[in-house]
Amino acid sequence: MHPTIETMRDVVAKGDEEALKDLLAKEVKFKPPTYYKTWTGRDPVAAVLGHVAQVFSDFKYRRIMGEGVNWALEFECKIGALDAVGVDLITLDDAGLITCFEVVMRPYKSVGALREAMNQRVMRDARFLSYKEALT
Amino acid sequence: MHPTIETMRDVVAKGDEEALKDLLAKEVKFKPPTYYKTWTGRDPVAAVLGHVAQVFSDFKYRRIMGEGVNWALEFECKIGALDAVGVDLITLDDAGLITCFEVVMRPYKSVGALREAMNQRVMRDARFLSYKEALT
Repeated sequence: MHPTIETMRDVVAKGDEEALKDLLAKEVKFKPPTYYKTWTGRDPVAAVLGHVAQVFSDFKYRRIMGEGVNWALEFECKIGALDAVGVDLITLDDAGLITCFEVVMRPYKSVGALREAMNQRVMRDARFLSYKEALT
Repeated sequence: MHPTIETMRDVVAKGDEEALKDLLAKEVKFKPPTYYKTWTGRDPVAAVLGHVAQVFSDFKYRRIMGEGVNWALEFECKIGALDAVGVDLITLDDAGLITCFEVVMRPYKSVGALREAMNQRVMRDARFLSYKEALT
């Protein structure tokens, strides 16, 4: 397994922003399950992932599939009382950093709860005032 | 690539129920992106997948990752005017048939449109009266 993917297993669930930044390319793109827009850039993406980790509980990676620069990391978690399943779709660059991080999930109701919780958290995090232009 | 996964590339987008059945284990489990419950059994699962294929347009598999019995098939499609991305999480049995088919997607709004369209279609398909007990 690629060492970046190996490290993701430890770092993503904790939402440790500094450790996450070490895995992200400078112009990383993050596509959330909750809406269609894309976050661009190491700092805002690490901040979003940090919040996601606080909303998810009992997070656990299941199967990890892929090779080279293309990976699919299946996970399960809870969002409040609701069960959820998802996949982190990862693309690495030549340096082994994450250049695209797209998250797909199920079921619909759980993603609705995630959306609500993320909106509340981002609204209270003053950094997102300056991250506004990172969302396109 | 496993021949079942290879065949999925031709068959899933078309929603050809008979061709789908040839890929499904008798007691296949299907976990949709739209709700938490699970469909069990070759006939109801083929019928659900047949309807899904009619709701999706411009369906295209992107990366296919995995090996052995564990596969992740990334796809993109449209649901009405909305773009969507998803992953078919596939588990094969020893005979190479699909024993678990779990679908995760993004974004939330597109999955809401899928849910609405699927409810309408299933409501008008009389076979689902007898498939009721396959949903648990």
